[in-house]
Amino acid sequence: MSNEVVMKATLAQKAARIMNNVTTEQKNEALLVMADALVAASAAIIEANKLDLKRGQEQGTSSSMLDRLALDEKRIEAIANGLREIVQLPDPVGELLEQFERPNGIHIRKLRVPLGVIGMIYEARPNVTVDATGLCLKTSNCVVLRGGSAALESNRQIVAVLRSALENTALPADAIQLIENSDRSSVNEMLKLKGLLDVIIPRGGAALINNVVENSIVPVIETGAGVCHTYIDKDADVQMASEIAFNAKVQRPSVCNAMETLIIHRDFASLHLEQLIQKMIEAGVELRLPSPYDQQVKGSKLVTEQDYATEYNDYILNIAIVDSLDEALVHINRYSTKHSECIVTNNKALAERFIQEIDAAAVYHNVSTRFTDGFEFGYGAEIGISTQKLHARGPMGLPALTSTKYQITGNGQIRQ
Amino acid sequence: MSNEVVMKATLAQKAARIMNNVTTEQKNEALLVMADALVAASAAIIEANKLDLKRGQEQGTSSSMLDRLALDEKRIEAIANGLREIVQLPDPVGELLEQFERPNGIHIRKLRVPLGVIGMIYEARPNVTVDATGLCLKTSNCVVLRGGSAALESNRQIVAVLRSALENTALPADAIQLIENSDRSSVNEMLKLKGLLDVIIPRGGAALINNVVENSIVPVIETGAGVCHTYIDKDADVQMASEIAFNAKVQRPSVCNAMETLIIHRDFASLHLEQLIQKMIEAGVELRLPSPYDQQVKGSKLVTEQDYATEYNDYILNIAIVDSLDEALVHINRYSTKHSECIVTNNKALAERFIQEIDAAAVYHNVSTRFTDGFEFGYGAEIGISTQKLHARGPMGLPALTSTKYQITGNGQIRQ
Repeated sequence: MSNEVVMKATLAQKAARIMNNVTTEQKNEALLVMADALVAASAAIIEANKLDLKRGQEQGTSSSMLDRLALDEKRIEAIANGLREIVQLPDPVGELLEQFERPNGIHIRKLRVPLGVIGMIYEARPNVTVDATGLCLKTSNCVVLRGGSAALESNRQIVAVLRSALENTALPADAIQLIENSDRSSVNEMLKLKGLLDVIIPRGGAALINNVVENSIVPVIETGAGVCHTYIDKDADVQMASEIAFNAKVQRPSVCNAMETLIIHRDFASLHLEQLIQKMIEAGVELRLPSPYDQQVKGSKLVTEQDYATEYNDYILNIAIVDSLDEALVHINRYSTKHSECIVTNNKALAERFIQEIDAAAVYHNVSTRFTDGFEFGYGAEIGISTQKLHARGPMGLPALTSTKYQITGNGQIRQ
Repeated sequence: MSNEVVMKATLAQKAARIMNNVTTEQKNEALLVMADALVAASAAIIEANKLDLKRGQEQGTSSSMLDRLALDEKRIEAIANGLREIVQLPDPVGELLEQFERPNGIHIRKLRVPLGVIGMIYEARPNVTVDATGLCLKTSNCVVLRGGSAALESNRQIVAVLRSALENTALPADAIQLIENSDRSSVNEMLKLKGLLDVIIPRGGAALINNVVENSIVPVIETGAGVCHTYIDKDADVQMASEIAFNAKVQRPSVCNAMETLIIHRDFASLHLEQLIQKMIEAGVELRLPSPYDQQVKGSKLVTEQDYATEYNDYILNIAIVDSLDEALVHINRYSTKHSECIVTNNKALAERFIQEIDAAAVYHNVSTRFTDGFEFGYGAEIGISTQKLHARGPMGLPALTSTKYQITGNGQIRQ
């Protein structure tokens, strides 16, 4: 174990006792101070970010990755505004969830409490550093951040600004910790810190998430992997089906709620396949179809089993052709990551079966899967989208960053 | 991977799709049929149990362990009644948790759904086989049972009876699976079945639970480890303090909510130590005290650091002497497993600090820690007591065996 990881997690754990006693007002004030401090320190943050960008360019990082990494004044202002929006969200900590008296006179209350110390393991986007910190502090948690090495200079500067901002507030600066060792080893050390970290939330690609899930002995909230499907039934409206499929694939292909496979009823395909895919082809989507359809669509490829299991996050789309809803359900059950699944149909009974039988965080009827999102659900900022079934499922708002505690009071009751 | 573990988990996963569609009435009927079948098969179950008892005796199993393993008609009737009680509990599956419409017209519903397939890994008590199965089926889950080898014959017979009972109901017999390979290897195989098992719940001693927590890539709900404390403040009522401490230690020392360490304010100890411990000594409790108190109490030992970290589940009690609430909090923060912690005091402000600052599933004021229990809380049967902070904390009733699903309906909404 390196000194850094254990030492910083220990400092966070000590700070968690202070965080356990801060008020909503103190937290909100601290978030506003942090937002102002970020804007005031824009120049220094942009300087640090340039070092990351320079190293990225030297290492041949793709321009889209460099764009996600880049910070300017406008983006820093947007990040600061994200903190200000968190101020507006209701504070779940202290919420009374249940309260009752037992026949023996003991009084039981169940309240929301902070989780304690949250480990965040994520990739190169420096806005996550601020978003995650804001959400953790708002819920009276401490955070141990382990960002990607590509953003290390940016994260170091941002965290220095945030910690320094807390010096003038009721919140302890040690509530925010950044692991600066950017070796894989520091991630693996975090995964073993049971007793110091209360939960680990990984955000990033499949390799990052799988490493965390497979090696962590700290409880994990799994996020993000999305092999999402849209099933176009034979009774679908052609126009609606085309718009939903186009939106699910093309509006932002890089995100987890984008569609990877379009499943089409054979009858619908034989009449409307061309109309369904035309706009996508124009938008540059590469299509992978089963035989013989791959022969009919110019520039397409033959789809493979492996393709059906792949989250592209890109302008690539698999197509599957089925003869029934049952066949569509079998396909989805086989390849789904249980994130977001959609049926487009005017047949209400079929839609109800789909919604009931599909096992996923979010199941849609006649709506694009792209709506699986904390803001779109009206929950405000989210720490991620859970694809596991324990604790939280789907977009995770502030309550997902809390636990509960039973408080029992009486006057000497003993068990018989 | 052995064929048995993968094969049975796969059968359970298939059965989960059927379980996803059964009604409350069908589940309740099945539970009653199972209860009747157990009673009707008492003779065969007792025969099988005799084989386990015989092997246990030959292997030199302690008489208290043999007693926990033993089944007779009365115990089987009690186990069957446990199933009948589960029938009476409200069914959480399908419960509508949230429902709202967004400005764009999409309608969002959040409902409780089954977890899917639950892996239960537990030790020698055959009643757990029935209790866990009943709770899992009531929540529309399937269960893969891996009981201790000491109860293998009993479990085999019980599960055969339960599965056969389901043949005449709407529930699939494959919803109940028993892993009969009693090697450690079958446990370790279960821990790797991500995608087939949705959650693993370990119940048993620290070694069993730690093995599961450290090696599982399936999400785990940790249960049971309880190093519970009772703090007697200087302003405690002597009579109440004595009764609560005695109850917490002696009423049933083998369970997780029993007290392991009694923390006493020095002023209280100097006046009332003798009265506080007298009844415990009479009950045969071995006391371990710090110096110089160990010299003052006949038959006691000097307590060690290791003792303070130990869950005895036995007639052994550590004592710690402190000068303040703060010192008590430091001790508890250091050694607590965050299960159940108690303060006995008439000082309301101190009690409130204790309740607010202690991080545990259940925090008590003037009540024995022995009440941390699903029945005592009025929740009915419990699958275990969670000592983790994710998903469920404290006694886990039926809702802890569910997840949630978002159902989103609209008329062609796409994301802008």
